[in-house]
Amino acid sequence: MCVMSKPLYNEELLEEYIELVIRKGLNLQPGQQLVIACSVDCAFFARLAMVAAYKAGASNVHMRWVDDFCSRTRFLMADDSVFDKYPAWDKLLMDSLSDEGAAFLNVIATDPEVFKGVDSNRLSRFSITTSNALKGYFGKIITGGVRWTTITVPSEAWANKVFPNAASAEEAISLLWDRIFAATRVGDGKALERWSNHIDALKRRVKMLNDYRFTELLIKNSAGTDLRMKLPKNHIWKGSGDVAKDGLPFLPNIPTEEIFSAPYANGVDGTVVGTMPNVFQGNLIEDFTITFKDGKVVSYDAKSGREQLANMINDIPGMDKLGEIALVEYNSPISNTGVLFYNTLYDENASCHLALGSAYPGCVEGGDSMNEEQRKAAGINVSDSHQDFMFGSADMSIVGVTASGKEVVVFKDGNFAI
Amino acid sequence: MCVMSKPLYNEELLEEYIELVIRKGLNLQPGQQLVIACSVDCAFFARLAMVAAYKAGASNVHMRWVDDFCSRTRFLMADDSVFDKYPAWDKLLMDSLSDEGAAFLNVIATDPEVFKGVDSNRLSRFSITTSNALKGYFGKIITGGVRWTTITVPSEAWANKVFPNAASAEEAISLLWDRIFAATRVGDGKALERWSNHIDALKRRVKMLNDYRFTELLIKNSAGTDLRMKLPKNHIWKGSGDVAKDGLPFLPNIPTEEIFSAPYANGVDGTVVGTMPNVFQGNLIEDFTITFKDGKVVSYDAKSGREQLANMINDIPGMDKLGEIALVEYNSPISNTGVLFYNTLYDENASCHLALGSAYPGCVEGGDSMNEEQRKAAGINVSDSHQDFMFGSADMSIVGVTASGKEVVVFKDGNFAI
Repeated sequence: MCVMSKPLYNEELLEEYIELVIRKGLNLQPGQQLVIACSVDCAFFARLAMVAAYKAGASNVHMRWVDDFCSRTRFLMADDSVFDKYPAWDKLLMDSLSDEGAAFLNVIATDPEVFKGVDSNRLSRFSITTSNALKGYFGKIITGGVRWTTITVPSEAWANKVFPNAASAEEAISLLWDRIFAATRVGDGKALERWSNHIDALKRRVKMLNDYRFTELLIKNSAGTDLRMKLPKNHIWKGSGDVAKDGLPFLPNIPTEEIFSAPYANGVDGTVVGTMPNVFQGNLIEDFTITFKDGKVVSYDAKSGREQLANMINDIPGMDKLGEIALVEYNSPISNTGVLFYNTLYDENASCHLALGSAYPGCVEGGDSMNEEQRKAAGINVSDSHQDFMFGSADMSIVGVTASGKEVVVFKDGNFAI
Repeated sequence: MCVMSKPLYNEELLEEYIELVIRKGLNLQPGQQLVIACSVDCAFFARLAMVAAYKAGASNVHMRWVDDFCSRTRFLMADDSVFDKYPAWDKLLMDSLSDEGAAFLNVIATDPEVFKGVDSNRLSRFSITTSNALKGYFGKIITGGVRWTTITVPSEAWANKVFPNAASAEEAISLLWDRIFAATRVGDGKALERWSNHIDALKRRVKMLNDYRFTELLIKNSAGTDLRMKLPKNHIWKGSGDVAKDGLPFLPNIPTEEIFSAPYANGVDGTVVGTMPNVFQGNLIEDFTITFKDGKVVSYDAKSGREQLANMINDIPGMDKLGEIALVEYNSPISNTGVLFYNTLYDENASCHLALGSAYPGCVEGGDSMNEEQRKAAGINVSDSHQDFMFGSADMSIVGVTASGKEVVVFKDGNFAI
C-alpha cells in the first residue's frame, strides 16, 4: 500500500515535486479546474496535490480515483459484455471538463504487470472501447487542446518490481522515491530553476534539428536495429514541453528528456530491436523485434509477450505504423541511474524510442488544426492509440540526410553529436 | 488510515460480514450490477466486497470512491460557485445505473466531524444541490425502486471519536470492529441464520402494531420529551427490511433493530428532547430540543451545533416537519454495548428516534406508487432530505390510542410492553 510510504519520503522534496507539477507541468491558472487521476493507494499524494492546486487558485479539483485491484478483478470476473461498453459517466466527466478548459493530472502508480494472466481479448476490446469513447478527450490531449501532465508515484507493486532485492516494500518505495526526485531534478528547493535551464537546453537542440530539414534518418546499433526512416516534408522536432492552444506552455510529462518528431508514415524500412521490456496493457513484452516495409509492420517477434505484441499491432487501426521517433541521450540523468523502471514515462526518457500508433499532430506544420484525413495527407500516422517502445543503446548511431543529400551525424555512440 | 486496520480484523468475521451484506442485505442477483460507494482509505474492504459480488454473479461492479479529506478541502478551498452545481457525471452514474436495476452498497466510514468549521452556508447549498440533482435516485431509494444497503467500516477518525481512550488508533479500530461484528450478529459463521430469526421476530412485532390501527401515540420520558403524535389513517408500520418493487426482500440498513412508521405530518404537538448527539452534515448537534405545533417546528435550541440545527430545519423544504417515528428497545444489542457511536446507522438502532424530512412513502398504503402531492394528501411529509435523531431513554413510555379511544401501553420503561 502506497500509504505505507508516508514516513519514508522527505516532505520538503514532495512539496517541491508537487509545486513543479502544478506550476511548470500543468501551468495551472487561477480559476481553472483540475482533474486528478490517482490510485486510491496513493491518496496521500492526491490530497497534497489537491491542496497545492487550490492554493494556486484552482476553482475546483475533481478526483478520478483508480485502483489496480478493482481494474484487474473486473477483467477477470465481470460479464463479458462489460468490455464493449464504456461507462457513459466517465466519458461525460472527461468531455465536459476538457470542454470547460480543465487541466488534467495523471498520477501513475500502476503495477507494470497488473493485467498479467488477463484474457488479452478482453484487454484489446476494452482498449478499443476506451479509445472510441474518449476520442474527443484524447484528441485534445494530442493537439494541445488541454494542458495535462503525467507523473509517477511509487506503489508497492511497482517499487518491488524495480527493486526486487530491497529488504522490504518500504525500502523499495523509498529507493524509488529517491530515483523519482533525482530524475525530476527535485532537491534543495531548486526544481523550478533547474527545469528552466533544462528546457532552454532542450529548446536549443530542437532548433538545431529543425534547421537541418532532414529528409530521412539512418538509424543503426549493434543490438540489431537498422532503419531507414523518411521524415514528412514539413516535419517539426519538438521537446522541452508543449504550448497549449490557449498559448500557455506546459509539460505533458515530468520527467522529459526527449526530442521527438513523426516519421513519414509510409517511409520506414528495416528492423528495430527493443532494448528494454515494454509495458503494454499491464503486461510485459520482452526481447522483441519489429520489421517494417514502406512504413508498415511486416513481421515481428518477442521472447515473451508475443501475443500482446500481436494484439498491439493487429487489433487497433493504425498501430501497424510508426507515429513517433524520439531522441534521448544514453548519457542522460535517468539513463545514468542504471535502473530499469518498467514504466514507460521513465524508461522512454532514458532511451531513444519509437511509438507505434498516432503521431502528435503538432509534429507537422499546422497539424494541430488538421483533421485526420489532412494529417494522413501530410504524411503522419493516425490511430486511436499510441505505444512507445525503447530501442536506445550505448552505440546508437543516427545519421540525418538533408534534401541536398548531405549526411550529418546526429547521434554517435548513443549521444548527440551535433 | 483504514488500511492500517488490516492486521487487526479477523478475516473470517470479515468474510461473514460481507456475505451477510451481499446475500441478505442487497440480495444481489446473478447478472445484476452493483455500485459500491466507499472511502479510499477502506479500499481493502471495497475490494473484498467486489470479489464477493462477482462470486455471487454480479455482471459488473462500479466503484464510487469518496474521501473525507478531499470533500472537506473542497468545502474549505474551492470557488464558491462549486456548491450550486452538481457534477453531471455523478448524476448520470446514479440515474443510469439505478434505471438499469443496479444494487447500491454504501460503506460509511466518515469522520463524524468531517465538516467541523466548514461554512454552513456552503454545506446547506450543496445539500440542496445534491438533493435536486439526485432526486430520481433518492426517489427510487425511498420507494423500493432499487435494492440498497448501508453499512459501516471503521476509519481512524471515526474509531478515535468512539474510543478516545484507546492506546492507539489501531486499538480503536479493532474495538470498533468488535462492536460492528457484535451489532450485526456476525460470528461463528452463523450470521445468515441469526438474521433470519431476527427478521422473523421483528415481523411478528410489526404485525401486532399494524393490527392495533392506532390513531395517535402519546410519548413521554423523564428527559423532557412529551409528544402527542397523530398517525395517518392508512399508516403502515415497517421493519425487518423491505421488499423492492421487483419483489425481492433486502435490508436497507445493517444493522437494523427499528420498527418505524410515518407521523401524520400536521398532527404532532409537544416537545422532544434529543438523548444522543446528532451528526448532521459532518457536524455534531448536542443537547437539543425541538417543539412542534400542528406538526410544524415552532422552536428549537441546542447547547452545541445550534446553527447546524437551524440550517437543518430552515434551509431545505419539508425539514420543519417529522417524517419518521421509529421504535427501538432500550434493551437492544446495540444499546447494550453502552457505546455512543457518533454514527446515525448505529445510534438510531440503539434508540427510539424520529426523523425530520421525508417520510418513507411505503409507510402509508399504496404510498410507493404515489406522487408527492398524493403523499401529502395521504398525510405524510415530503422533503428532499431525511435526518434521524435519537430521543430514546431507559424510562421511555409510549401509549397507543385506538380509533375507539382505547389506550394500549406500547412501550414501558424503554422496552416494548406488547
